[in-house]
Amino acid sequence: MHIGHQQLYLGIDGGGSKCKAVIVDAEMQCLGEGIAGAANPFHSVDNAQQSIVDAALLALADAGLEQSQINQLIAGVGLAGVNIPKYFDLMNAWQHPFKEMHLATDLHIACLGAHNGDNGAIMICGTGSVGYVSCNGDSLIVGGHGFPQGDTCSGAWLGLQAVQKVLLAADDLGAQTTLTKRIYRALGCLDSNDLVSCLSGQGATYYARLAIHVFDAADEGDLVAQQILAQASNYFTAVFNKLMAKEPARISLIGGLQVRLKDWLATDIFSQFSEPMQAPEIGAVLFARQQSK
Amino acid sequence: MHIGHQQLYLGIDGGGSKCKAVIVDAEMQCLGEGIAGAANPFHSVDNAQQSIVDAALLALADAGLEQSQINQLIAGVGLAGVNIPKYFDLMNAWQHPFKEMHLATDLHIACLGAHNGDNGAIMICGTGSVGYVSCNGDSLIVGGHGFPQGDTCSGAWLGLQAVQKVLLAADDLGAQTTLTKRIYRALGCLDSNDLVSCLSGQGATYYARLAIHVFDAADEGDLVAQQILAQASNYFTAVFNKLMAKEPARISLIGGLQVRLKDWLATDIFSQFSEPMQAPEIGAVLFARQQSK
Repeated sequence: MHIGHQQLYLGIDGGGSKCKAVIVDAEMQCLGEGIAGAANPFHSVDNAQQSIVDAALLALADAGLEQSQINQLIAGVGLAGVNIPKYFDLMNAWQHPFKEMHLATDLHIACLGAHNGDNGAIMICGTGSVGYVSCNGDSLIVGGHGFPQGDTCSGAWLGLQAVQKVLLAADDLGAQTTLTKRIYRALGCLDSNDLVSCLSGQGATYYARLAIHVFDAADEGDLVAQQILAQASNYFTAVFNKLMAKEPARISLIGGLQVRLKDWLATDIFSQFSEPMQAPEIGAVLFARQQSK
Repeated sequence: MHIGHQQLYLGIDGGGSKCKAVIVDAEMQCLGEGIAGAANPFHSVDNAQQSIVDAALLALADAGLEQSQINQLIAGVGLAGVNIPKYFDLMNAWQHPFKEMHLATDLHIACLGAHNGDNGAIMICGTGSVGYVSCNGDSLIVGGHGFPQGDTCSGAWLGLQAVQKVLLAADDLGAQTTLTKRIYRALGCLDSNDLVSCLSGQGATYYARLAIHVFDAADEGDLVAQQILAQASNYFTAVFNKLMAKEPARISLIGGLQVRLKDWLATDIFSQFSEPMQAPEIGAVLFARQQSK
């Protein structure tokens, strides 16, 4: 494929489980995409750099371009973990193979993507949860902090709450709930001993898979599940209010839980969300174009 | 050392972090002790069996006995994990090197130890938490279930609650608390990002080390810490009531938190606890003597 002398851009969205890459031309036409492994420098700077290069090479191949053309790309790289200055500096000092590299947090590029390059706010509710606002030359992260100590209202948090309530009910120390039979069925458990065996050593992703049962149970009138979602909604509202105090022009809800969660938010909050316009990796390209002279 | 034809007993208390062994004579005089590695068959049946043998051989050496005398020992073996039938059966099918082996849960031998061979109830509050009662031919486990999904009121649970409150305060989504400066100082953190870095990948033992700060803060009037302990006390009381409904003759509180926790329990509950009389590994010997013909 011949691209001529047109400048090409690489957008990277890297997180704890995977790294997505997109290559676009000067008119923002997508030429190719690639997905590689984890790219959170907090866990491993070397792995993050390798995953970014792997994803970029896959996107070049997908676009019908030569691998050597990696040095022609202006890269916008959004990464989890680089909100911590140490990891921002380590990644920014990288002798990267691109023409230029412009580094930002995964939150910033997701926000730019959601608002098509403009400032605004986002709330992410998937396996994890976090709020972010960038406007008027200021930015603020609200929440996050990981599992199990933070990420309230995330899928992992909902799953953990559900399991806690099931175990309290099993000891007759808490209200009975249909979450018990739903979660036992989902995990193939016969009793609470089985459940504890299943949970041993599991992390956020495992718990997040149980979140759907909280929504299902609540929809069918289970009071315990409804209380969990009411607590989630209260936290969500508090984060929302913190973000809106910065007066962003737009706010978007991103992540796997958005479809189910909307039913449990107050109407006057739900109505203020706008659909995200672009994916985070496109947000990374928009960031690179803003930063590149 | 010459023991003659007197029967010797081995008591084993095996858990997720270590395995304690004691050898006593027919008059319950302690001849030797040994400590080896983890012995929870839920994590590894092979390791549990190896740790039990290692601890027994160390205790034999400590007693000035020959390693070959392991086959003269009547062993009482109390293990974490064997409340799950599968692991009880796997351990019970072991071609063990002892003269006899009598297997029970770690809870049962701790309970027998606390009440010097009699029935009764125990509550354990250390890194984990659990209640157990054995009387009138019946036994019941209340609570437990591990971290982070269970073990309410344990050290790990208290530490996690503290960290959650610190992170909420850092986001200005919860009340300010002196737990922030206490925990930052304890972990050498400057801010919430540092704290999240410290917590990454940590388990129950790490969180449990933070529990002392909840007690210290509460003692000095911190409302957030006091609320955490009030919640712990409520749960503790509920477990206590479940156990006492079985009408045990005695109940004892065991574990690292007992000294600090007592101040936060209602007087009418605290006053019902009796000092444990023997260590769990001695309880294992008592169990073996009860079971052996």
